[in-house]
Amino acid sequence: MKPSDIYTVSITYDWRLYRQDIAGSMAHVKMLGKQSIISKDDVDAICVGLSKIENEIENGTFPWRNDLEDIHMNIEGRLHTLIGPVAGKLHTARSRNDQIALDIRMYTKDMVLKVIEKITLTQKALVTQAQSHSDVILPGYTHLQRAQPVVLAHHLLAYFEMFQRDISRFEECYNSADVMPLGSGALAGVPYDIDRDHVANELGFNQISSNSMDAVSDRDFLIQYHAAAAICMMHISRLSEELVLWSSQEFGFVAMAPEFRTGSSIMPQKQNPDFAEIARGKTGRVYGYLMSILTTLKGLPLTYNRDLQEDKEVFFDTVDSLFATIDVTTLMIDSLKFNSTKMTEAANFGNMLATDLADYLVSKGLPFREAHHIIGKISNYANDKKKEVHNLTLKEYRQFSDLFEQDVSEISLESSVRARNVIGGTSPKRVKKALLTAKTILESRYGY
Amino acid sequence: MKPSDIYTVSITYDWRLYRQDIAGSMAHVKMLGKQSIISKDDVDAICVGLSKIENEIENGTFPWRNDLEDIHMNIEGRLHTLIGPVAGKLHTARSRNDQIALDIRMYTKDMVLKVIEKITLTQKALVTQAQSHSDVILPGYTHLQRAQPVVLAHHLLAYFEMFQRDISRFEECYNSADVMPLGSGALAGVPYDIDRDHVANELGFNQISSNSMDAVSDRDFLIQYHAAAAICMMHISRLSEELVLWSSQEFGFVAMAPEFRTGSSIMPQKQNPDFAEIARGKTGRVYGYLMSILTTLKGLPLTYNRDLQEDKEVFFDTVDSLFATIDVTTLMIDSLKFNSTKMTEAANFGNMLATDLADYLVSKGLPFREAHHIIGKISNYANDKKKEVHNLTLKEYRQFSDLFEQDVSEISLESSVRARNVIGGTSPKRVKKALLTAKTILESRYGY
Amino acid sequence: MKPSDIYTVSITYDWRLYRQDIAGSMAHVKMLGKQSIISKDDVDAICVGLSKIENEIENGTFPWRNDLEDIHMNIEGRLHTLIGPVAGKLHTARSRNDQIALDIRMYTKDMVLKVIEKITLTQKALVTQAQSHSDVILPGYTHLQRAQPVVLAHHLLAYFEMFQRDISRFEECYNSADVMPLGSGALAGVPYDIDRDHVANELGFNQISSNSMDAVSDRDFLIQYHAAAAICMMHISRLSEELVLWSSQEFGFVAMAPEFRTGSSIMPQKQNPDFAEIARGKTGRVYGYLMSILTTLKGLPLTYNRDLQEDKEVFFDTVDSLFATIDVTTLMIDSLKFNSTKMTEAANFGNMLATDLADYLVSKGLPFREAHHIIGKISNYANDKKKEVHNLTLKEYRQFSDLFEQDVSEISLESSVRARNVIGGTSPKRVKKALLTAKTILESRYGY
Amino acid sequence: MKPSDIYTVSITYDWRLYRQDIAGSMAHVKMLGKQSIISKDDVDAICVGLSKIENEIENGTFPWRNDLEDIHMNIEGRLHTLIGPVAGKLHTARSRNDQIALDIRMYTKDMVLKVIEKITLTQKALVTQAQSHSDVILPGYTHLQRAQPVVLAHHLLAYFEMFQRDISRFEECYNSADVMPLGSGALAGVPYDIDRDHVANELGFNQISSNSMDAVSDRDFLIQYHAAAAICMMHISRLSEELVLWSSQEFGFVAMAPEFRTGSSIMPQKQNPDFAEIARGKTGRVYGYLMSILTTLKGLPLTYNRDLQEDKEVFFDTVDSLFATIDVTTLMIDSLKFNSTKMTEAANFGNMLATDLADYLVSKGLPFREAHHIIGKISNYANDKKKEVHNLTLKEYRQFSDLFEQDVSEISLESSVRARNVIGGTSPKRVKKALLTAKTILESRYGY
Repeated sequence: MKPSDIYTVSITYDWRLYRQDIAGSMAHVKMLGKQSIISKDDVDAICVGLSKIENEIENGTFPWRNDLEDIHMNIEGRLHTLIGPVAGKLHTARSRNDQIALDIRMYTKDMVLKVIEKITLTQKALVTQAQSHSDVILPGYTHLQRAQPVVLAHHLLAYFEMFQRDISRFEECYNSADVMPLGSGALAGVPYDIDRDHVANELGFNQISSNSMDAVSDRDFLIQYHAAAAICMMHISRLSEELVLWSSQEFGFVAMAPEFRTGSSIMPQKQNPDFAEIARGKTGRVYGYLMSILTTLKGLPLTYNRDLQEDKEVFFDTVDSLFATIDVTTLMIDSLKFNSTKMTEAANFGNMLATDLADYLVSKGLPFREAHHIIGKISNYANDKKKEVHNLTLKEYRQFSDLFEQDVSEISLESSVRARNVIGGTSPKRVKKALLTAKTILESRYGY
Repeated sequence: MKPSDIYTVSITYDWRLYRQDIAGSMAHVKMLGKQSIISKDDVDAICVGLSKIENEIENGTFPWRNDLEDIHMNIEGRLHTLIGPVAGKLHTARSRNDQIALDIRMYTKDMVLKVIEKITLTQKALVTQAQSHSDVILPGYTHLQRAQPVVLAHHLLAYFEMFQRDISRFEECYNSADVMPLGSGALAGVPYDIDRDHVANELGFNQISSNSMDAVSDRDFLIQYHAAAAICMMHISRLSEELVLWSSQEFGFVAMAPEFRTGSSIMPQKQNPDFAEIARGKTGRVYGYLMSILTTLKGLPLTYNRDLQEDKEVFFDTVDSLFATIDVTTLMIDSLKFNSTKMTEAANFGNMLATDLADYLVSKGLPFREAHHIIGKISNYANDKKKEVHNLTLKEYRQFSDLFEQDVSEISLESSVRARNVIGGTSPKRVKKALLTAKTILESRYGY
Repeated sequence: MKPSDIYTVSITYDWRLYRQDIAGSMAHVKMLGKQSIISKDDVDAICVGLSKIENEIENGTFPWRNDLEDIHMNIEGRLHTLIGPVAGKLHTARSRNDQIALDIRMYTKDMVLKVIEKITLTQKALVTQAQSHSDVILPGYTHLQRAQPVVLAHHLLAYFEMFQRDISRFEECYNSADVMPLGSGALAGVPYDIDRDHVANELGFNQISSNSMDAVSDRDFLIQYHAAAAICMMHISRLSEELVLWSSQEFGFVAMAPEFRTGSSIMPQKQNPDFAEIARGKTGRVYGYLMSILTTLKGLPLTYNRDLQEDKEVFFDTVDSLFATIDVTTLMIDSLKFNSTKMTEAANFGNMLATDLADYLVSKGLPFREAHHIIGKISNYANDKKKEVHNLTLKEYRQFSDLFEQDVSEISLESSVRARNVIGGTSPKRVKKALLTAKTILESRYGY
Repeated sequence: MKPSDIYTVSITYDWRLYRQDIAGSMAHVKMLGKQSIISKDDVDAICVGLSKIENEIENGTFPWRNDLEDIHMNIEGRLHTLIGPVAGKLHTARSRNDQIALDIRMYTKDMVLKVIEKITLTQKALVTQAQSHSDVILPGYTHLQRAQPVVLAHHLLAYFEMFQRDISRFEECYNSADVMPLGSGALAGVPYDIDRDHVANELGFNQISSNSMDAVSDRDFLIQYHAAAAICMMHISRLSEELVLWSSQEFGFVAMAPEFRTGSSIMPQKQNPDFAEIARGKTGRVYGYLMSILTTLKGLPLTYNRDLQEDKEVFFDTVDSLFATIDVTTLMIDSLKFNSTKMTEAANFGNMLATDLADYLVSKGLPFREAHHIIGKISNYANDKKKEVHNLTLKEYRQFSDLFEQDVSEISLESSVRARNVIGGTSPKRVKKALLTAKTILESRYGY
């Protein structure tokens, strides 16, 4: 390879677009036939040739040629070899600029469908684990400090929600990509009586582009994919962070399955959560690619500029990184063994029922701010005594307020979560409803 | 200020949320009354106090206090002063964590509505200029090389399309933000019999959040705003680049109005397109803020972490940068004086009718690839003779192909654009239709 | 303010450059006098006026005017008022383009000196804490799993090293900024017989710029500042992450001083490490600004373009964010109360002496890989028995290898750290040497 | 490949480190021998095996195995096959963590040397073109408006300066990488009597690391490479932008050689500057990778975390993108054909001598501000008359000021550039000196 090959040879990565390129060409050429721009015989010859090429590629017998540089020229060149000069008619009323726009849009739509399928599996894994742990109480954290007890299923379903939003964003990206650009020509439209709607229908597009100059230089849908991927990776980085924390000796909330942890070359006892770490680390790469495509597009005058060639390799690696990460995450979630004992043990320390004690005083008539103040003092007292606020005696409580009565002893982890009985709250009743809703969503999506 | 004030004092910027904070508190407290969690009298006292505070802020008489650090404490502190201890009841069944989530969501929704209004004005400016220049022909460029003639209105409407997509993305952001989080408490929900739907209705929210742990730590909608803003700035950077190019002596296609250019302290003849340059430059800032919020959220465990405080200042400056840029762009477009003569002059050089000549040969029966080859040779010939391909004599044409006949002389800039008579093409007929569509869109949006 | 004011009024932030602007003007005008380009009387009048202006600004009596837009015009306008038309001579042989380049370079140099001073204090705080904890053993982590015991001082000195490298990077930035651009004029140099070296000496610059076109458009030194700041923030984000982890109930290794933690509005028991979280969160902002300045500069043709105006506000906020973060970090480190008991307790669990056991077998003649394998089995055995590998009986050890003898009981946390007696290793002896070196470095820098 | 292979199989890219890995192992094992930690015979056996492996890799006969995942295991596994169990002794007193740190540092140092060599060739190409065009006058631009005439060599040498600074930054990166980490073990140092200085000398390192915990997790040097690469790409993006502009029909200043432009599939006349566009576009990718590595490192606790695996692939692609871009840029510069006629023609329009006219009036005794004002009026007059300010008659000049005399006619492009006779200015005399300096620099570097 000469130094400049990295500049001009894209077939090493854009071969991925072969299916879209061939389908697009077929739809185009059939339309040319329908409009009598080329003859039916020519249409047939070209379509037969293209089908053969698709087979060759899928069978691994296609003679790829780096000197033909990109996927379009590889296919076009092969078509020439297979069917002769009539191959040249394929390029009637079409330019590279609208052709590549078509290919990437089709590919993007496919990659949206795939990613939604993958995320759905992750959600399913979360729901399955949540169902098996709908009564396990663990500490809920703010600022990584124990805050209030929550139910494990509730914690897991928080991620279900994040992934729901990810799917919405990918669907919006689908809609942005779902605009058929063919017919825009190089930049100004084409001087042939073509039928753009027909091509759009044939290829399953919902709209056709409205302005040829925009159509050949628009990559907004790709940026949207990158942005949706970045947010999705951010969510996974949060989950991964928690898995790393939870599998530390200090937390001990979860054990990774053997296939998701690795040992050490030097320390025989180590069981490292490498997969969760790599997932977290790959966030950087996907963020970087978002910045990459935005930078490349900054300040480009209309219409097509060759800078846009940079849109593909970056996109493909975003897709690969994202897909592998989602797949790994799903398998990892499936394999998690939660340590309920450790969780509940942890929930019993950290004075997490302090808020409930304050609410108790409110229920006895005290304003919340005052109740908060009193419990603050009790909390300090308990710390000094190395006790938990909910383990003090009635006598101790009454040193701080006469409002405490025998029923204060009913305050417990269970009563605490039970009390959060609002939509979205952690009460087991609500969480079970949320689980049902989640399952309904998944079922409606793919017959889960 | 102590060094740490920059860490803890946010009132210098989060005062902007006062309207949302007050509206949210009022809706919350009314619901508490409706649910008999606090008394009607308390509700009234608190609402009167909050109204007074809103008036004070808008009249500029509110006593802001840096030592109270943020907007919540400033309002709550003032409420205490105004109505006494009953103010403390406002915080029943609410936490800072769900309160700030509510405020930012309401603010984001407002900022979406505002930006759509602003972009609409930019689109209107484009349409107005396009209408006045629907017959002006200029070179269409690919790779910044003259490619094919296009109509100026067509070029301008390419940006109309970009802005249409920007509006869609902001609308999607609106939907993401349109979820009412109050009732999530600190992280686990609240132990009171509240009516979350009532609050949502009162505040004009379309949905309520489904998981309290997610609700207090979700900032996806904010990232979406940043991403939409980044793409919108990218579009404006492209337009700005063109305005800088077009106002150079080399292009000479446009003259900026005096208020959008500046002179030089040293060179008396200079008329610099500073506003277009600053607009292009500000793209960097908005891209940077997108990276900023993504980085801040990376790897945070559930639920609320104080890192999230960083979400606001960055967002406010994104809004300010974006709004100022859109406003300036609108005014700049309005003020542009296009030099049609220069444009058409430019369109006459650069062999831009070569494609039309090729298409001519195709219409005479030649396959496109062969036609392309012949015109390539004519193009070289013309370059050598320092002529344009469309200014050669019939005799000269026929040196390259016998298919040329007298009617080749009918090929002109006008015939070229006229021929691109496809949806999205540059033919004046299509462009006029596109203009009508654009106007209908704008009218339906705001009674333009 | 009109919408466009955000574009043109920079005095709201560039007032910060007043000292540099005035110093630069004085040096320039004195040189003009020395070269007889203007008269000595004019020099004196201008210098007296500029001194007065500097005093006014520092006394708070300077009449700032937004309509004069920037710091240069504010000073120049005031000079006119104070000394009349002779003020106009100040701009002889100088342009805005080289003037602003000079101001920012001088400011950058100052900000390097300040940041080095600040980082030095952070290093001093680390060394002080390390000295007081040079014998405390805690778990060293890889993958957030307990790996091998280390000494707390060793852990803290790891950050000392990072900050040493930060200082180097800022020093390199200083050298990049230390090039005097005045004399470059608007872009081509000036047609006056000026003495650039004289101005450079007067202002303490080490070099003068070699190419006028480069000099007015070069902002590399600013990007270097942003990059050095980003890396420094990354280091602090790692330290902050550890402080958040260590102050969790699960780790319990450290207690933040009261002024560096905050309570909760709703949960009376909470003590949140907010400052460490904000420090970690601000990393996003500084990363973003690095991306911002890089994006702004991408693809700008020579020479000066107004996009460059965007360099300043972003830089000032980077400086503010970085400085506040370093200051807070220093104070936070100073105030940390480490819980040695908890640390050593933690070090006693997690089989962290497994490597030492393997090394023991190696010392008895076994190849490391085989030893590693045996200890792996012992480690599993210990896990099953809920014991630590270093607490097994000789009998138990000998079930796995005959090489174990009585002296295996000498393996302990202390023997483990003592054995890492290599340069850079955690043995207390080496760590004490490292502490001495660190102190020598600090003393040599500022007489610590 | 299973979905998780993308997570665990790195041999597809980290094979690039084979040379560093082998050299590092040899130096390590020799030191173990010297220190009598292993026997001389073992040292010899291992070194012979490693040499053989290096030969196999370079001959293409090495049996790469994906199931061995990375370069270390591939080499270690092969060593076992070749020399048997003694291979296991290679890993004495070494961990993967310090081994990979060593490999990347060595690789980084190599990549610095290579990039400096490449940039030097680009500088040489610039100097060669500058020498051939030291008298050609073209417009110097600010704000892309014609500002003052400059000499083409001066313009080209502005880029020489940028590349000089790039080299400095890469040299600083070299120094950061030039620290030998072996001996840090997994994180705490090793319990063997090793000689770290000996290994450092053997491998050509200038320093050894001072803190083992820092040493296994430090990737600052890599970020520095990314930052230096990003700034270098920014410079090239500016040059590329100019080449795109200059090869447009509007400017016409330069013609790309045929191998650096491409035609169009549809427009026979097109000659697109694709290479310059791709170079500009690749800036995005390199910026993105900088953001990527920074994001990955954010918030990681000490010491080694598997997230760091993400450092390599991104780095390798940065290197590839950067190297290809520099190589292409060098060849492109070499091949440029400048159109001096067009340049000088352009310099004659745009009133670029207005500043010189102002300076003329100053030389006749007028203050600069007044002179600037008068020439401003003359400039408007000339615009109205469609003339250039330097082409007016003495009579016309004198309508604006009596100070004009016959000698005003001596003002010309040549007199203008000649007058900028300051260090760094565009006067041909100074530019020739700058060329000499540039050549001296290059000669001293590589015997140019």
